[in-house]
Amino acid sequence: MDLRRIVEKSDTKAGKAFDLSIQALIIFSLITFSVSTLEGLSEPMLAFLYVSQLITVLLFTAEYLLRIYVAENKRAYLFSFYGLIDLIAILPFFLLTSVDLRAVRVVRLLQLFRILKIVRYSRALMRYHMAFKKIKEELVIFFSATCFLIYLSAVGIYYFEHSAQPEAFSSIFHSLWWAVATLTTVGYGDAFPITTGGRIFTFFILMIGLAIIAVPSGLLASALQRAGKEIADESELPG
Amino acid sequence: MDLRRIVEKSDTKAGKAFDLSIQALIIFSLITFSVSTLEGLSEPMLAFLYVSQLITVLLFTAEYLLRIYVAENKRAYLFSFYGLIDLIAILPFFLLTSVDLRAVRVVRLLQLFRILKIVRYSRALMRYHMAFKKIKEELVIFFSATCFLIYLSAVGIYYFEHSAQPEAFSSIFHSLWWAVATLTTVGYGDAFPITTGGRIFTFFILMIGLAIIAVPSGLLASALQRAGKEIADESELPG
Amino acid sequence: MDLRRIVEKSDTKAGKAFDLSIQALIIFSLITFSVSTLEGLSEPMLAFLYVSQLITVLLFTAEYLLRIYVAENKRAYLFSFYGLIDLIAILPFFLLTSVDLRAVRVVRLLQLFRILKIVRYSRALMRYHMAFKKIKEELVIFFSATCFLIYLSAVGIYYFEHSAQPEAFSSIFHSLWWAVATLTTVGYGDAFPITTGGRIFTFFILMIGLAIIAVPSGLLASALQRAGKEIADESELPG
Amino acid sequence: MDLRRIVEKSDTKAGKAFDLSIQALIIFSLITFSVSTLEGLSEPMLAFLYVSQLITVLLFTAEYLLRIYVAENKRAYLFSFYGLIDLIAILPFFLLTSVDLRAVRVVRLLQLFRILKIVRYSRALMRYHMAFKKIKEELVIFFSATCFLIYLSAVGIYYFEHSAQPEAFSSIFHSLWWAVATLTTVGYGDAFPITTGGRIFTFFILMIGLAIIAVPSGLLASALQRAGKEIADESELPG
Repeated sequence: MDLRRIVEKSDTKAGKAFDLSIQALIIFSLITFSVSTLEGLSEPMLAFLYVSQLITVLLFTAEYLLRIYVAENKRAYLFSFYGLIDLIAILPFFLLTSVDLRAVRVVRLLQLFRILKIVRYSRALMRYHMAFKKIKEELVIFFSATCFLIYLSAVGIYYFEHSAQPEAFSSIFHSLWWAVATLTTVGYGDAFPITTGGRIFTFFILMIGLAIIAVPSGLLASALQRAGKEIADESELPG
Repeated sequence: MDLRRIVEKSDTKAGKAFDLSIQALIIFSLITFSVSTLEGLSEPMLAFLYVSQLITVLLFTAEYLLRIYVAENKRAYLFSFYGLIDLIAILPFFLLTSVDLRAVRVVRLLQLFRILKIVRYSRALMRYHMAFKKIKEELVIFFSATCFLIYLSAVGIYYFEHSAQPEAFSSIFHSLWWAVATLTTVGYGDAFPITTGGRIFTFFILMIGLAIIAVPSGLLASALQRAGKEIADESELPG
Repeated sequence: MDLRRIVEKSDTKAGKAFDLSIQALIIFSLITFSVSTLEGLSEPMLAFLYVSQLITVLLFTAEYLLRIYVAENKRAYLFSFYGLIDLIAILPFFLLTSVDLRAVRVVRLLQLFRILKIVRYSRALMRYHMAFKKIKEELVIFFSATCFLIYLSAVGIYYFEHSAQPEAFSSIFHSLWWAVATLTTVGYGDAFPITTGGRIFTFFILMIGLAIIAVPSGLLASALQRAGKEIADESELPG
Repeated sequence: MDLRRIVEKSDTKAGKAFDLSIQALIIFSLITFSVSTLEGLSEPMLAFLYVSQLITVLLFTAEYLLRIYVAENKRAYLFSFYGLIDLIAILPFFLLTSVDLRAVRVVRLLQLFRILKIVRYSRALMRYHMAFKKIKEELVIFFSATCFLIYLSAVGIYYFEHSAQPEAFSSIFHSLWWAVATLTTVGYGDAFPITTGGRIFTFFILMIGLAIIAVPSGLLASALQRAGKEIADESELPG
């Protein structure tokens, strides 16, 4: 069947054109969405953005229905990862016309899930996905250790700084924010220790934290290269 | 003996339930502790927190006595790492009722050592522990070199910036704080060089520092993978 | 032919002297350019800088014509990477005398492309160039994933912080700046989340981002070493 | 000869005691030096610090003369790395009594070179020294590339931000400071782009910079491990 080949594969000219159109549409929809958050837009611009969004959603809906139509196993597509994303990309728009205003912001946020549609086309993201899966166990370990260290840091700094800076370190939850910003070395500068004890504590925490926080990048770099090799091996096989 | 198996092992249903209960209790106790540092809590909330803490400590005490009771070698357990932690997790509470107010803050801090109880159950932390032990020598070397570099940076910046910024760089001890925040690339922004000499010095120190400061993460990443392999090898052995 | 050997090779004394002179001239021209951006320069200094620039450009022009003259395949040189850079290094100066003032700043910027002339002489930059080429595919993947993550972060933080900080996070484009400064861990401190939701979101984004953002340095480090080995192997061959 | 063995080796009890005393003296002298930079010290404290410094210098002088006395080749010791450091550690103090006040600050700075005396005793620093020597070539390449990138960034941001922020980016030299603080991801927050062009430029520069700036740590980590192995191999040999 010809139509299925165009929609699901990209080994024909028409199939490639179809894929590229969907990708362009995703990018276009992300740009119009971003522009629509700017303030002080002119009336014609707002009208243009509204019409763009309408057309985008209609085209995504058409794509969704088309994919259902051509799917051999319709049920499998509907509940597959891509099937759900294709649905989420259009659903919020239709909900927006029927719900009351308070829910709008959350629903508009859902709309953004359409960015995940791009995963289907991005070999880069697929390779990261594979690499992450390879080191899943290490990442869980890293995440546990990091949470443990961050909580410990927050408790420590709370005891050192709370009386000196009751605003910035008013509770352990506020201190957690400091611990996140410090251990990731972002260091915004909205909260930092000023007591001698707190500064020495920060030094020791950072000595441990620097070792731990940078671990996943080393793991990921080697996993990415292994994933790349596997993809290369597979594409050499007769397919 | 049945009770020992439940308390010390987790290969039975009851043993797993016991372990999970203790873990849940640790998490619960950390959450109530964190919440209790929030300001402006209502009276009922404070009462709830107090009762929670009371029950938590009683349960931890029960666990501690139980572990002593089932231990084959009671003395060995009492002075083991876990035995001491189990004690420290409950001791501060009992002390709090008999000491005067000035010591309270320190004692409450000790209470937090109960977070270490979680190490017994966390395979992630155990693996980090193993990995750290593998590269202990390198870490000591790294720590010495870092302290040396930080002291050198502090002295240097003190000479360049002291006269220009007598507040932020009022002594070498104040400059040490700048050196820590800069060489770890946290960069809070509470102290930074403004003289040309100080900025050029910072540039050279950072060139050396970036190489040194990120070393442990490379070491740790490979040690973690080796530790993971060893754990996997061991669990394959008939046990 | 002797002149060609002097200009294109550096295996004779005269050839080495020629290379060193051009390098010195490039450095000198960069310094005078940098100094000319200082404010409050004295009249004689400005005159000196102007004359320096004039002489520099004339010498670069002479070098350019010489290289055309000695090139075996003049057309190939003219459209080669180095030929274009040699042209761009002098062209802006000649344009500056004939265009109106509004374009001047852009044209002066072009002048700075003469810094690229130094690539011809720097083995360090050549090796980086080789290393980058080796991991081009991985870098493209990294760049895509980073852009994806940055966009996602910007959208997320916009929803969490827009109503609390309408200034700093006034649109997704403003939020993108926050995402760049945060995920690279620069953390200037000009924009940071203040809501609880935004801070928790930042924590999760940083956990993922730290793994991704530091990937290329691992790749580059190993590629640099391989590139160095290849250069060493080549220079051992009879040439 | 007994005395030489005590001073130059540490394989006897007396030799070990001698080494430890010198190390303790170095640490003590660094602490008193640091304390002396504190402001508002009491009279007795100042007197104590002065006497401490006097005794320290006298002991270091005695050590220096002793080392000359026991050295087999006195000339070789005098002009060796350690010989010069031993001299520099005491020279400034004797100069301080004879020079006028303006030079004092610089001379006091020289005094701090006595920290280098500790290199003789620190296996950690020796191993770093060995590791750095192994990757000297790569580090030179890294340093060149970093300087090139920092200059390029400074020029770029100057063009984008100069007219918007004439204070923070008043010349290329001021912009260099921004480039250093940004590419090392320290990000103090004393200077950051506010124009859209400058921010996009910063994004691209950081994408390249992150790859380059973290390279040496990867190189150093593996060099450190190789250096450790070599030291271990040597100490196994019959010595």
